[in-house]
Amino acid sequence: MPLSLKVNLGERTYPIYFGSELGSMASMTGIERPEDDRQNALLLDEAVAGSHGADIDGFFGNVPRLVLPAGERTKALGVFGRVLDFLADAGLSRSARLWVVGGGVIGDLGGFAAASYLRGIRYVQVPTTLLAMVDSSVGGKTGINLSAGKNLAGAFHHPTAVLVATDFLRTLPAREFAAGAAEVIKYGLLGDSALFSQLEKSPLASGSPSLADVIRRCCEMKAAFVESDERETAAQGGRALLNLGHTFGHAVEQVTEFSRYLHGEAVAIGLAAAARLSHRLRLIDAAEVGRVDAAISAHGLPTRLADPLPVDALMNAMQHDKKVRAGRLRFVVLERLGNAVTRDDVDPALIPGVWRDIGAA
Amino acid sequence: MPLSLKVNLGERTYPIYFGSELGSMASMTGIERPEDDRQNALLLDEAVAGSHGADIDGFFGNVPRLVLPAGERTKALGVFGRVLDFLADAGLSRSARLWVVGGGVIGDLGGFAAASYLRGIRYVQVPTTLLAMVDSSVGGKTGINLSAGKNLAGAFHHPTAVLVATDFLRTLPAREFAAGAAEVIKYGLLGDSALFSQLEKSPLASGSPSLADVIRRCCEMKAAFVESDERETAAQGGRALLNLGHTFGHAVEQVTEFSRYLHGEAVAIGLAAAARLSHRLRLIDAAEVGRVDAAISAHGLPTRLADPLPVDALMNAMQHDKKVRAGRLRFVVLERLGNAVTRDDVDPALIPGVWRDIGAA
Repeated sequence: MPLSLKVNLGERTYPIYFGSELGSMASMTGIERPEDDRQNALLLDEAVAGSHGADIDGFFGNVPRLVLPAGERTKALGVFGRVLDFLADAGLSRSARLWVVGGGVIGDLGGFAAASYLRGIRYVQVPTTLLAMVDSSVGGKTGINLSAGKNLAGAFHHPTAVLVATDFLRTLPAREFAAGAAEVIKYGLLGDSALFSQLEKSPLASGSPSLADVIRRCCEMKAAFVESDERETAAQGGRALLNLGHTFGHAVEQVTEFSRYLHGEAVAIGLAAAARLSHRLRLIDAAEVGRVDAAISAHGLPTRLADPLPVDALMNAMQHDKKVRAGRLRFVVLERLGNAVTRDDVDPALIPGVWRDIGAA
Repeated sequence: MPLSLKVNLGERTYPIYFGSELGSMASMTGIERPEDDRQNALLLDEAVAGSHGADIDGFFGNVPRLVLPAGERTKALGVFGRVLDFLADAGLSRSARLWVVGGGVIGDLGGFAAASYLRGIRYVQVPTTLLAMVDSSVGGKTGINLSAGKNLAGAFHHPTAVLVATDFLRTLPAREFAAGAAEVIKYGLLGDSALFSQLEKSPLASGSPSLADVIRRCCEMKAAFVESDERETAAQGGRALLNLGHTFGHAVEQVTEFSRYLHGEAVAIGLAAAARLSHRLRLIDAAEVGRVDAAISAHGLPTRLADPLPVDALMNAMQHDKKVRAGRLRFVVLERLGNAVTRDDVDPALIPGVWRDIGAA
C-alpha cells in the first residue's frame, strides 16, 4: 500500500496516494484498473503521451482517450466543449469515470468537464507535473479561462482519488520543474518556515532525495486549508492564503495573454511582488524581501518582469481577478517568512509602486 | 406576504413565492430590489423584454442586462460563453446575484452560468412561462445541450429564490401555454390522479380560475421529489419519475434538431408514447391510453408525430439520453393514471413498436 493522505470533506472525502509508478500504485490502492470497467475515459496531456506513451498504453489499454496540448490556451471554452463532446461520443453514463492525466491545465479543464458532463461524473486526478502534484490536483477547484480573465468559470468538484506518481517528474522539462517549485516556495512562505529554510539551503531539483517528502508536505498543507475552508468563504485567511503571489501573478499572465510565462513563473514574480507589498506595509523588512528573491532565483525562477509591462494594464487586469470583493482587491501578504494573512484594506495607491519595483513601466 | 413554499434542502433550502406581479411580490418577500445592490445582473428572455418591457425596466432599472431569444438553440455552448463573458464584463464578484427572467431555456442556461461563473454565484429564478413555473425553475437542474444530446452538460445549482408571478402568463402565446400544460398533465399522470381528473374535465387555460392553485400544486410535487432525491440517485423511483414522457420526448426533439416541436409538445408526444409502453407492459389498459390521449388533445397538444420520423434515428437518439444507465435505458411507465414507476428491465425490442404507434416509420 503506498503512502496516502486523506482530504477530509465528509461524504466527499478522498485519498491522495503517493508512489513512483502509476500502474503499480493503482493496483495497490484497490482502484480498479480502467480496463476492468468499460465506463472509463482518459483525458491526456500531449507531452505525457509523448514521454510516457508505453506506460500509458499499458495501463489504459483501449480506454477512449482525448489528447490535448498543455498550454494555458487549452483552458478555453471551445476546448471545454470538445472534451464534453468527447465524453458524450464515448457514450459515458452517470456512473462513468474520467481519468485526467496531465499538468494543471489538463487537470483544471478535465475536472470542470467531469463536473459538468451529465451534471457531474467521477474523476481521478493523475498529476504529471510538480505544479499539479503540489497544488492544482488537490482541492476540487476546476475551471477554464474567459477572455476577461483566468479561471473565471468553473466548479468545485472533488476527484474520487489523486494518484501522485513521481516517475512522471523524470521527464519533466527543467523549466516546468522550476515552475512547480514556485508553488513549493509559496507553501513555505505562507505557512511553513522550516520548509522555506530548507528550500533556501538546498533548492529543490528533480533528483532531490527530499522531493517526495516535500510534495507530500505541500499536499498536507493544501488539504488542511481545503478542509477548513472548502469553498474559500472564510472572512479572513483560510483557503485564500493559497493565493499568495497569485493576484499579481494572474495579472501578469493576463496582460501577456498566457503566452510569455508559465503559470509558476508568473507566480514567482507574484511572490516577489507580494514580498514587496508586505514590505511597503511594514510587515517584513528589506532583508526578508532579499531572502524571498534569493530563494526564487535559486530555483531558476524570475523575480522581475522580463519586459516592462504597462502598470495601467496590470492594474486593470487585477480588477478583473475573481478575488475582488465588493470592488476591493484582497491581497495575501507576509507577516513574516512562513506566515501569510489576507488583507482587504490595502490602499490601492500602493500597488503601482509594487509593480514598478518588479520591473513594470 | 405572498403565498410561499419551501424547498427543504438543508443549507440550500430556498423559497418559491407565488403572486401576480413581480415588483410588488419582490418587495413583499423582503428580497432586495436589484437597484439597492450594485452587484446584480439580469439575463432576460427576448419575448419578455418585448411584452413586459415597461415592468422590467421599472423593476430592474439600470442593472446590466443581456437579452437572448428563447429557442432551444440558445442552450448551446457558445451562448453559455456569451453569458459568462457578460457576467465578467459587468464586473460581478462572488457575492453578486444574477436574475434569470424567462422560460425554461433562459432558466437552464442562466442557472448553469450562475453555477459556473467564479465557480458559483447566487441567482433568482423568475419563470415567465407556464412550463418554467411548474417545472424547470424548481429543482436546481441547470444545463445546456451538446451536439450529442439535450441537457448533457450542466450543474446542480439551486436558486436562492423562485418568484412565480402569474401576470407573465397573460401575454404568453397559446402554443407556449399549451406546451406548459403538457408538464402539468405529466404531474397528474405520475402522482396525482385527482389533478389528472380535473384536467380531463376542464382543460387548463390562461384564464382558468384554478390556474394559480394548479401551478402551486405542481411546484409542491416537484419540491417533494427534489427533497427526497435531490440528485436523482435513487435506485428506483424518486426524482427520475419527473422524467415521465421525457425519454421519448427528448429523442423527438433531438431527431428534429429542436426546431419542429416546443419542448412541451415533444413531452406531450412522449407522454402518449409512455402510455403505450405501459399498455404493452400490461400495466394499463387501452381505455386508459385513450384517456391520456384525450387529456393531451384537449389541451391543444399532439399525441402523434406530425411527420413519420425514422424509428432508427429515434432509437439512436434514445441511447444518447443521459438517463441511460450501464447501457440500459431507464423508462418511466404508468402503473395507473396517477402513479408512475421507473423500470430498468424493459425489453428494448418493445420500443420500436411504441414509436410506430405514435407515427414513426
